[in-house]
Amino acid sequence: MHKTLPTLLATAVLALLSQAAIAVRQPPEKPVTPPKSSAEILAQSPAGDWREIKPEDLLVMELAQGQATQQVLIELAPRFAPRHAANIRALARGGFYDGLAIVRVQDNFVTQWGDPNGDDAKTAKPLGKAEAKIPAEFSVDYKSLPPALFNKIPDLDGWAPMSGFVDGFPVAADPKAGKAWLAHCYGMVGAGRSDAVDSSTGAELYAVIGHAPRGLDLNITVVGRVLKGMEYLSALQRGGPNMGFYDKPEQRTGITRVRLASELPEAERPALQVLRTESKTWDALLEARRHRGGWFVHSPKHVEICSASVPTRPRPAP
Amino acid sequence: MHKTLPTLLATAVLALLSQAAIAVRQPPEKPVTPPKSSAEILAQSPAGDWREIKPEDLLVMELAQGQATQQVLIELAPRFAPRHAANIRALARGGFYDGLAIVRVQDNFVTQWGDPNGDDAKTAKPLGKAEAKIPAEFSVDYKSLPPALFNKIPDLDGWAPMSGFVDGFPVAADPKAGKAWLAHCYGMVGAGRSDAVDSSTGAELYAVIGHAPRGLDLNITVVGRVLKGMEYLSALQRGGPNMGFYDKPEQRTGITRVRLASELPEAERPALQVLRTESKTWDALLEARRHRGGWFVHSPKHVEICSASVPTRPRPAP
Repeated sequence: MHKTLPTLLATAVLALLSQAAIAVRQPPEKPVTPPKSSAEILAQSPAGDWREIKPEDLLVMELAQGQATQQVLIELAPRFAPRHAANIRALARGGFYDGLAIVRVQDNFVTQWGDPNGDDAKTAKPLGKAEAKIPAEFSVDYKSLPPALFNKIPDLDGWAPMSGFVDGFPVAADPKAGKAWLAHCYGMVGAGRSDAVDSSTGAELYAVIGHAPRGLDLNITVVGRVLKGMEYLSALQRGGPNMGFYDKPEQRTGITRVRLASELPEAERPALQVLRTESKTWDALLEARRHRGGWFVHSPKHVEICSASVPTRPRPAP
Repeated sequence: MHKTLPTLLATAVLALLSQAAIAVRQPPEKPVTPPKSSAEILAQSPAGDWREIKPEDLLVMELAQGQATQQVLIELAPRFAPRHAANIRALARGGFYDGLAIVRVQDNFVTQWGDPNGDDAKTAKPLGKAEAKIPAEFSVDYKSLPPALFNKIPDLDGWAPMSGFVDGFPVAADPKAGKAWLAHCYGMVGAGRSDAVDSSTGAELYAVIGHAPRGLDLNITVVGRVLKGMEYLSALQRGGPNMGFYDKPEQRTGITRVRLASELPEAERPALQVLRTESKTWDALLEARRHRGGWFVHSPKHVEICSASVPTRPRPAP
């Protein structure tokens, strides 16, 4: 038999996460219901556990690879970075990103895109109707998160006193400090900045392509998550020794265009749904990761916000 | 100014990690010495903090990419997987890996290589002098690790009661259970197995190319770490929906040859050194990751075994 590793959503044991389990700091020792695979959990998920993506929060990025066009879908997180989300929408509406390029790919860190001439005020592409200066949005008021939407997980996170999911995004929090923030997990998208904390505009963006660089949390504004096409950002040739920036222009991958789904004709909008992270189905998937079955002989009884990514699916036919 | 993110070893604050700090479960609140960058820490490291790699523990893998040859260097971990290390040496000496291929690349998970015909007993490549059956080596006796070599870190790890570094490898441990094991961090190499725990031989190997899949710990034998050329394994085109296995043979990347450095002429052996993880230099680099400076405005006061990878360097001229 061909030797294989399990998929990220491999055969697993299901136990619905009780509210009690959410309240304590350690998950239950054993699953409380019979084994179910993650595939079964997803297959049996009620329609109400899935949500549509607001068209004004969905970026549709097209990369030019030879003849082929690669589509990358990014969901913005206005609850956590409203000013950056608004600016990115303005940039997309103005066609700012069209014709720009992926300028940096640093192994086990980030893929970054923007204006290759951004350095040079003379040749830099104008931001159009977007603002040239907006505040840093490294965190939000913890109390601003609706408790019903913040699905806290009991598992210890060394990077923050509290962690969980809101709106499908991995979130860390420090209730005592009154802060909550988006965590730098694989596939999360942030807004590049220079030394000034408020120097990001959304004109230059990056996606995490390696082990979660949680040390960046609270140091830079995270604006959203790649929902689809991550493999087009993660499999690119790595750049040079200067932090992964490409040495030669021809190494760059061109960005054909970036549109907001809301700007596209109804028929061209991606028909994608995201699992609600406040749903029982998501709790069940997380619990299935803690208590493994099938190929696994040991269960970690643990999961992190960065070790389980929130599923998407094509919108089912009505 | 062009907006950039810091490198994984960005300007940072140095504080030598005291033995006391190692003993407790939380790192010191503040650095105890003036700021130094990670580059400075490395530049000022004494020669004795670096070690040579045993030639019989160093795999030199060559991949065929068009006309170019890409070299991937892997250090075996005989202290943690002696039987697998011995088998992999036998396979390399027998030229088993030569002409095989990378058969699987699953995004945010693993790149896997071996015999594309491994499924079929008739056409499968014979293992030669390597053993067809060896025991699983998921963990070792915690007491077998020399205390002076196990550099424990105080930072909480949700996956294990204890974590740190041994021989340059990330290690997790459960002293009560008497176990220690290599952690599935980015760049770690393991031996694929089927459902039977003792079905791995080292004939099929994988490298972690995404967020650390720590859920695999204690479920499969980890055999070593990629020291160099990781970008040749991580930037490959992702495979199909079947766990990332390539659908078409032409998608595979060929393995030209795999040799043990000990089998190569002195002059052809990679002149690479690895930082000793029991050294003060490594403690200082970890502390610099906890207390950031320069571009950073917030320090996590935390690091994980999978968020800091152990440096290598070309052997300095005598």
